[in-house]
Amino acid sequence: MHKVLSLIALAVLGSGTFINTCQADTLAIVNGTIIDATGNAPIRDGVLIIQDSIIAAVGSAKEVSVPDDAQIIDAEGKFLIPGLIDANLHLFLNIDPETLVKYEGRFHEIIVEAAQIALKSGLTTVFDTWGPYADLVKARDAINSGDVVGSRIYLAGNIIGFDGPFSADFREGAAAHFSKAFVNRINRAWDQGVGRDLMWLGPDEVGSRVAEYAEKEVDFLKYGGSGHSDMFFISFSQRVQKAIVDAAHAAGKTVQVHTTSIESLDMAVEAGVDILTHCDITGPVKAMPEATAKKIADRQIACSVLPVTQRRLDALLAMAEPDKGPGPDLKNSRKNIVSLVAAGATLLLSTDAGIEHPILMSEREGAVTVDPRAKLGEGHFNALVGLEEMGVAPMEILKMVTSNTAKAYKLDGQIGTLTAGKIADIVILDRNPLKKATNYRSIHTVIKDGQIVGIDALPISPIISTLQPTEVTD
Amino acid sequence: MHKVLSLIALAVLGSGTFINTCQADTLAIVNGTIIDATGNAPIRDGVLIIQDSIIAAVGSAKEVSVPDDAQIIDAEGKFLIPGLIDANLHLFLNIDPETLVKYEGRFHEIIVEAAQIALKSGLTTVFDTWGPYADLVKARDAINSGDVVGSRIYLAGNIIGFDGPFSADFREGAAAHFSKAFVNRINRAWDQGVGRDLMWLGPDEVGSRVAEYAEKEVDFLKYGGSGHSDMFFISFSQRVQKAIVDAAHAAGKTVQVHTTSIESLDMAVEAGVDILTHCDITGPVKAMPEATAKKIADRQIACSVLPVTQRRLDALLAMAEPDKGPGPDLKNSRKNIVSLVAAGATLLLSTDAGIEHPILMSEREGAVTVDPRAKLGEGHFNALVGLEEMGVAPMEILKMVTSNTAKAYKLDGQIGTLTAGKIADIVILDRNPLKKATNYRSIHTVIKDGQIVGIDALPISPIISTLQPTEVTD
Amino acid sequence: MHKVLSLIALAVLGSGTFINTCQADTLAIVNGTIIDATGNAPIRDGVLIIQDSIIAAVGSAKEVSVPDDAQIIDAEGKFLIPGLIDANLHLFLNIDPETLVKYEGRFHEIIVEAAQIALKSGLTTVFDTWGPYADLVKARDAINSGDVVGSRIYLAGNIIGFDGPFSADFREGAAAHFSKAFVNRINRAWDQGVGRDLMWLGPDEVGSRVAEYAEKEVDFLKYGGSGHSDMFFISFSQRVQKAIVDAAHAAGKTVQVHTTSIESLDMAVEAGVDILTHCDITGPVKAMPEATAKKIADRQIACSVLPVTQRRLDALLAMAEPDKGPGPDLKNSRKNIVSLVAAGATLLLSTDAGIEHPILMSEREGAVTVDPRAKLGEGHFNALVGLEEMGVAPMEILKMVTSNTAKAYKLDGQIGTLTAGKIADIVILDRNPLKKATNYRSIHTVIKDGQIVGIDALPISPIISTLQPTEVTD
Amino acid sequence: MHKVLSLIALAVLGSGTFINTCQADTLAIVNGTIIDATGNAPIRDGVLIIQDSIIAAVGSAKEVSVPDDAQIIDAEGKFLIPGLIDANLHLFLNIDPETLVKYEGRFHEIIVEAAQIALKSGLTTVFDTWGPYADLVKARDAINSGDVVGSRIYLAGNIIGFDGPFSADFREGAAAHFSKAFVNRINRAWDQGVGRDLMWLGPDEVGSRVAEYAEKEVDFLKYGGSGHSDMFFISFSQRVQKAIVDAAHAAGKTVQVHTTSIESLDMAVEAGVDILTHCDITGPVKAMPEATAKKIADRQIACSVLPVTQRRLDALLAMAEPDKGPGPDLKNSRKNIVSLVAAGATLLLSTDAGIEHPILMSEREGAVTVDPRAKLGEGHFNALVGLEEMGVAPMEILKMVTSNTAKAYKLDGQIGTLTAGKIADIVILDRNPLKKATNYRSIHTVIKDGQIVGIDALPISPIISTLQPTEVTD
Repeated sequence: MHKVLSLIALAVLGSGTFINTCQADTLAIVNGTIIDATGNAPIRDGVLIIQDSIIAAVGSAKEVSVPDDAQIIDAEGKFLIPGLIDANLHLFLNIDPETLVKYEGRFHEIIVEAAQIALKSGLTTVFDTWGPYADLVKARDAINSGDVVGSRIYLAGNIIGFDGPFSADFREGAAAHFSKAFVNRINRAWDQGVGRDLMWLGPDEVGSRVAEYAEKEVDFLKYGGSGHSDMFFISFSQRVQKAIVDAAHAAGKTVQVHTTSIESLDMAVEAGVDILTHCDITGPVKAMPEATAKKIADRQIACSVLPVTQRRLDALLAMAEPDKGPGPDLKNSRKNIVSLVAAGATLLLSTDAGIEHPILMSEREGAVTVDPRAKLGEGHFNALVGLEEMGVAPMEILKMVTSNTAKAYKLDGQIGTLTAGKIADIVILDRNPLKKATNYRSIHTVIKDGQIVGIDALPISPIISTLQPTEVTD
Repeated sequence: MHKVLSLIALAVLGSGTFINTCQADTLAIVNGTIIDATGNAPIRDGVLIIQDSIIAAVGSAKEVSVPDDAQIIDAEGKFLIPGLIDANLHLFLNIDPETLVKYEGRFHEIIVEAAQIALKSGLTTVFDTWGPYADLVKARDAINSGDVVGSRIYLAGNIIGFDGPFSADFREGAAAHFSKAFVNRINRAWDQGVGRDLMWLGPDEVGSRVAEYAEKEVDFLKYGGSGHSDMFFISFSQRVQKAIVDAAHAAGKTVQVHTTSIESLDMAVEAGVDILTHCDITGPVKAMPEATAKKIADRQIACSVLPVTQRRLDALLAMAEPDKGPGPDLKNSRKNIVSLVAAGATLLLSTDAGIEHPILMSEREGAVTVDPRAKLGEGHFNALVGLEEMGVAPMEILKMVTSNTAKAYKLDGQIGTLTAGKIADIVILDRNPLKKATNYRSIHTVIKDGQIVGIDALPISPIISTLQPTEVTD
Repeated sequence: MHKVLSLIALAVLGSGTFINTCQADTLAIVNGTIIDATGNAPIRDGVLIIQDSIIAAVGSAKEVSVPDDAQIIDAEGKFLIPGLIDANLHLFLNIDPETLVKYEGRFHEIIVEAAQIALKSGLTTVFDTWGPYADLVKARDAINSGDVVGSRIYLAGNIIGFDGPFSADFREGAAAHFSKAFVNRINRAWDQGVGRDLMWLGPDEVGSRVAEYAEKEVDFLKYGGSGHSDMFFISFSQRVQKAIVDAAHAAGKTVQVHTTSIESLDMAVEAGVDILTHCDITGPVKAMPEATAKKIADRQIACSVLPVTQRRLDALLAMAEPDKGPGPDLKNSRKNIVSLVAAGATLLLSTDAGIEHPILMSEREGAVTVDPRAKLGEGHFNALVGLEEMGVAPMEILKMVTSNTAKAYKLDGQIGTLTAGKIADIVILDRNPLKKATNYRSIHTVIKDGQIVGIDALPISPIISTLQPTEVTD
Repeated sequence: MHKVLSLIALAVLGSGTFINTCQADTLAIVNGTIIDATGNAPIRDGVLIIQDSIIAAVGSAKEVSVPDDAQIIDAEGKFLIPGLIDANLHLFLNIDPETLVKYEGRFHEIIVEAAQIALKSGLTTVFDTWGPYADLVKARDAINSGDVVGSRIYLAGNIIGFDGPFSADFREGAAAHFSKAFVNRINRAWDQGVGRDLMWLGPDEVGSRVAEYAEKEVDFLKYGGSGHSDMFFISFSQRVQKAIVDAAHAAGKTVQVHTTSIESLDMAVEAGVDILTHCDITGPVKAMPEATAKKIADRQIACSVLPVTQRRLDALLAMAEPDKGPGPDLKNSRKNIVSLVAAGATLLLSTDAGIEHPILMSEREGAVTVDPRAKLGEGHFNALVGLEEMGVAPMEILKMVTSNTAKAYKLDGQIGTLTAGKIADIVILDRNPLKKATNYRSIHTVIKDGQIVGIDALPISPIISTLQPTEVTD
């Protein structure tokens, strides 16, 4: 006789503890519809067997038999998809001076908080593409070792060529109000010695510096192909970009680029990067030429895009000055995503998300709260709806947020699909995500590493995300 | 047989604990020279008896006999003076954004730290004339109740008419880098509802608002007679100043004024204030007219001055632009002190001192570290030397830092002199302070409330004062 | 037989030349209604005789006979009032850097342009209360000597205690973009050595400096009672204000004050000034107390006010942040004017007007163009309507813009009423100004110094007022 | 019998008029040493015949006979060199707001003033590589048509990819202080529609835009290879740079690049530019690699360099913060020039010079006036000395400032050497320039287009260059 663990029971369990410790070694999820994210048709009346955190078998009830000792999860009427993956976010995005001063020494705790918010919203894996290196490593290792619960983290550390938070790339003006000692500590925590100075150097030297950086405990590399403030400027020459890519690959790591213009995009493609981060951003003047989209598709370079909903775009356009600001950029972004899909490019869903400081957010005049994209735990749901609006096929959307990303990061042997041999990262939904993108929000259960996550208790010890905007008084 | 407690033993005791808990009820300090700060001649071979924290008797060995049960302190070759008093300092002076953000919620601890640094340097009483009200109250009450050791605190809270740290009076430009919620919390902590807005009102309303403020747990009142940034502007009309002074006196509290120009000084004199804070500051253009000094003397209004040494003045003048900045101001300050002394005015020594943040200080380009005046624990020693340079008589200098201040604050019934009936606040010096002002530094023992203070252990739990400038790296 | 000069003919004459050179020595204006601004009832079927630029006789046709040699002006159906007077404007208000650089050396020409715009709109006399001294003198002397046409100018030069255009009182931030030589030249042109530095001094010295300044070719004096940027700050102590007033009176000149708060107003009243400039401005927090209004009335000190229409106030309030900016100020301004009228104070109409640079104006985001008050040639008409809205009696309104002002400046022996012996400054209106304030706009003829002005040709050589906003391109 | 025109007589003539109008059709300069700047040895006892503004013959007295009708100039003891050429300067460099506002509409007059200062100092031809297009065209055409005297001008107009004076490339902060209309007019006068916006576009579009721009009356093209403010950023991708170069060449124009880093230099080399402007600037971090110098030499791309003297470098290093500012840049500049010479590259002397506004210059705190390089009329003399210090051979130095530049701009058929068939641009020196670089200053006579220039009278109607710093008062 199987131990039947109803989903209702799971939900109850979930609310008190964050990992279901009384779980059996073998778990069988039965009666649900399995959408494995390989592109294959959904399996109705499916059976998915988990053993030792790995998916042991997947198939229809006819094909797969449930082991005797398995604990049974009845997913009748529900939908199983792989754990979601955000290809590009920033668990520690709070580079406002107030947070930096107040929580210096505790950034890793905020990163864990963010990883728990991510996990709660179905993201079992996230790729952190810019943040404070040492704190990210600390949080990643704590999570990956099982000491604390959270979304699985892969991290890049600095974006090669970018300076830290108190630099011309970000908030230079704030530096004057703090001690140089503090400003330097913060900038060093981010830039890790591979900042703007590299732009003065030639390919050999940049290559060496990147090779050295790649020896750190970073999971992948990312470099700036264009400026962060002056988005049309190019950061590195063609040959230097090649040297960076080669150094990364020599170190066995995937390499991606930050680009924000048509030409910086093209240079990165020529340099042979693995992933183009926000390759949908081509500036306010012009959308991506067809030839560029085709080149990306032909060379099979993954495109990490930042989709917004039409509602958000409309709200931003209403606020923006004519031909300026985020509105026109995003108008082109939507066009570019459609072009890339049409050209057959491989897309990855990303959000640039982090924890939004609730107090600072509440104070932003005219801050558009319509369908936020960079708000951790919310952004990916809105981005998925944006893709649906742009006419991307439901199965492609699912792949963008699961298997495509795993593959682009060369992790498709481990994550991204519900197929035998993969790590058991599973989201069980109440409603069919292929019917309507908003159904991704109907999360019933999150399983990570084969363990049912007590998502209701997440984040466990929130620091920033629960600050009360009501503290704003005059 | 008396228990003889040698000063050497005291020093040893002092280093481990901050209050000598094994002290007898009656203490007799014998064989030293007593300078009681009344203006009377020093008493050689003096005897001072302390009972229940009060000075029971003072006189020569011939006049005063030592009770049998008294514990004896042998002060052979030493000099007894009243505990020192700073008429105007700011225990929490660290309004740089970094400290404000980092230590919000712990300001009272920093105030205690400051009060311990003060006590260690002989200041048994301090008058805090501007700071965060609630935190000051918390620290004052903790010290005055005996829960923690520290200099006795009297506090004013806000300077009436001044806005908080993130305002045009102080660091307005920094506000843009923080949440409004934080900026407002900080500003409110300081302004206490009696800020710049009062300047729009007439005498009746300002009077009412001050009367209301006087009901708070403040020990005395202080108002702005002139602007903090624009030093030549006058803050309140003659009749409003009168209303403020009347409201303070009606509440039974002394009232002082912040003035920075000849005319703001004159208006405050006319308004009937008790103390003129930094009345030696008359701006860069002109020194105090003789008539003004005479008026102050005639009306017996106490002058709280900020003396600097000639070395410091020279260093500042070398840095300053011609006719600008702190140099010319201080040049006039020295002249003004001499004029005031000549006119027979009652002077109080003050420093505006607080804990200087060691890291921020070390970064200040060209920051003049020569004979600092506003550095807590150092400043008053330098100021005393400055007075000596200006030709002030040694006995007058002693009175400025003890009995004059006690009297100006109407506390001469309790502190300020070594006479029977006063609280036993005593500093024992190795060398004669009437011989040379630097001898005030030769502190051997500090007694507060009749208790020997373990000054070597102070400050007990330093937060800011021990930060290491060596953290500054690039 | 009289030469009959019909008003229609006058209008034709007016359009070609600016002074009617073929005018007879004696002029008789007949058949119109004369409102002499003394407060007496209008004289229907009136006769006004002008001889040698002076009003020789005024009365009804029954009382006054027309000399044989008189040239007749038939004013049938029209209304004669004294030439209008603005108690407080700034003919050169264009202290934007672009104008300052571009027209340096030609400011006097712009002042003449302004005086011609003023005259065209019925202002035969204006009091310029702040501007570049030497240029104002040049323009005034050219006009008053008859070399050029324009409104009669009385000037104050600098506001004593104010620094120049590139100072903290006005546009300090712009200074960094220009040579120090230029910045200093401009600042000196305005401050004339009686700027902010005076605030450091006592009454004797300020008195001497003002006495010295009064020897310049200024017609009256004005000093700052409160700060221009920080409106609640007081500039001079009570005794210094007294010294300024005394120095002005000793020099035989009227003296007025710039005040912007209840207390700065009261101090000026106590100091004995002749005119309170914009005494309706008491800041955003509080309207004028009844006692203040009464005191002003009792001491018969003239109040120069800046009325706005309700429509303008509404427009400004709609733009303003709550409790900030010009809206709340003006709300109190309207209340204060009503209070002053109720208390029986003598009011003068003023506008602070100058030529508004058409290009800069057209670029101001949200610049309220509704019923502008500070726009030369327009402002006084709107201000008169504002007064009507506030319930001021029509005859009082007329006096505010004519006889009251003449009297306040002690010039009632020469201008301000249509009475025998006065300079023949006359405005002939098509419609009755006592019926409706907008009727002041129905100017048919302007006579200044007994000469009919060719108003259609004014301004004769415009420099700024005709610049085309259409030059704004992108 | 020849008409002998002694050089002394010439000098006298020169002082009154700027062109010797009583000059014969044929001129023979005899007895001097001719250094023709081809690299050939100097010709002692040389004869140079000018007919119709062209050099008809050059050789030793033995080889060349003097025509009978020739007017003779006796150059005994003197040295003839080709008219000097500055490969890169900016006749209108005064983009300070004060000059822009004050002289709008007269920029072409200032350009003529500059061209006359240049001519006076021996520069018969200058290449203006950035400035206000229409004004430059106006000045160039006036000079080249012979209407006014001045250095022959070739102009580029805008640097493609740069925005105007009030942009992020130059003085963005000043814009807020002026009307948008003015700011836009100025920016448009410079950017000519080929500014920063091009950076958003791909090669085809940029190519078209450049082709269109090349149809204007520009003599050659220049584009930004790197940012003007952020010197390490790259402005255009490799393929866009290629498109720019191709468009220029298709229009039959030479094309040069503004580069400021090793990588932007390399990209321009790869793109096939004709001239590398200030290719000696590689930033503060690193000097030019040997491989880069070799590549430039091998591809025979001309290097326009900005040499400074050691004295100037020392002065700048003394002022500069460690590792920052102009000092370290220039340290590498000197190293790079030596490397380029060693590699055999073709160098052109350039100065970036313009008229320095005497008042603004005199106010610059710590402005280094030691051996200025960018001061028109002075800079090239100092730069020549700098080259001498770096060990460049005297004949190479002469070629850099004459024939090399002519050749690089493909104008060697017309100017640059003293050889038959060339335009008669000649400088006659008192002392041998091959002996000592300071001898270039010993200008006795300047001949341009075969006409003796009355250099003493230049500039004829100075506007800016003679402003008196003594106007600076306080």
